[in-house]
Amino acid sequence: MIAEVYIELKKGVADPEGENTLKALKLLGFSTVRNVETVKMFRIHMDEEDEERARNILEDMCERLLANPVIQSYRIVMK
Amino acid sequence: MIAEVYIELKKGVADPEGENTLKALKLLGFSTVRNVETVKMFRIHMDEEDEERARNILEDMCERLLANPVIQSYRIVMK
Repeated sequence: MIAEVYIELKKGVADPEGENTLKALKLLGFSTVRNVETVKMFRIHMDEEDEERARNILEDMCERLLANPVIQSYRIVMK
Repeated sequence: MIAEVYIELKKGVADPEGENTLKALKLLGFSTVRNVETVKMFRIHMDEEDEERARNILEDMCERLLANPVIQSYRIVMK
């Protein structure tokens, strides 16, 4: 089973990489760009066929390693 | 218009962040995990209503700034 885990900054948390990318795009002349947000995605391959159990394991991974719950939220998409 | 731009390493290019995440997950006891790939996503907000034109602009952004064509490929998803 393959899952995609999206790790995103919570609303209100500064995203300096996104801000700098926005500035760089504007400097390059992309005048219609309004905002850039950065999101991290992990594509995880697992030996686990039960979707419910895989989701529980992935949530555990997010809480213990992949996401920082103070500033980040996560979303799991099964493929 | 909002677009999601996925920047991914090309096949065969080393992904040290993914490898280290895999090792860390195994050390934490997640024994069913087989592989971890890391993908970068930019969510881009644009003042541009024409989808075709937006896609052209986004491809230009990828080629000029967001992706390194030697080692990365990109994929654009309109929202």
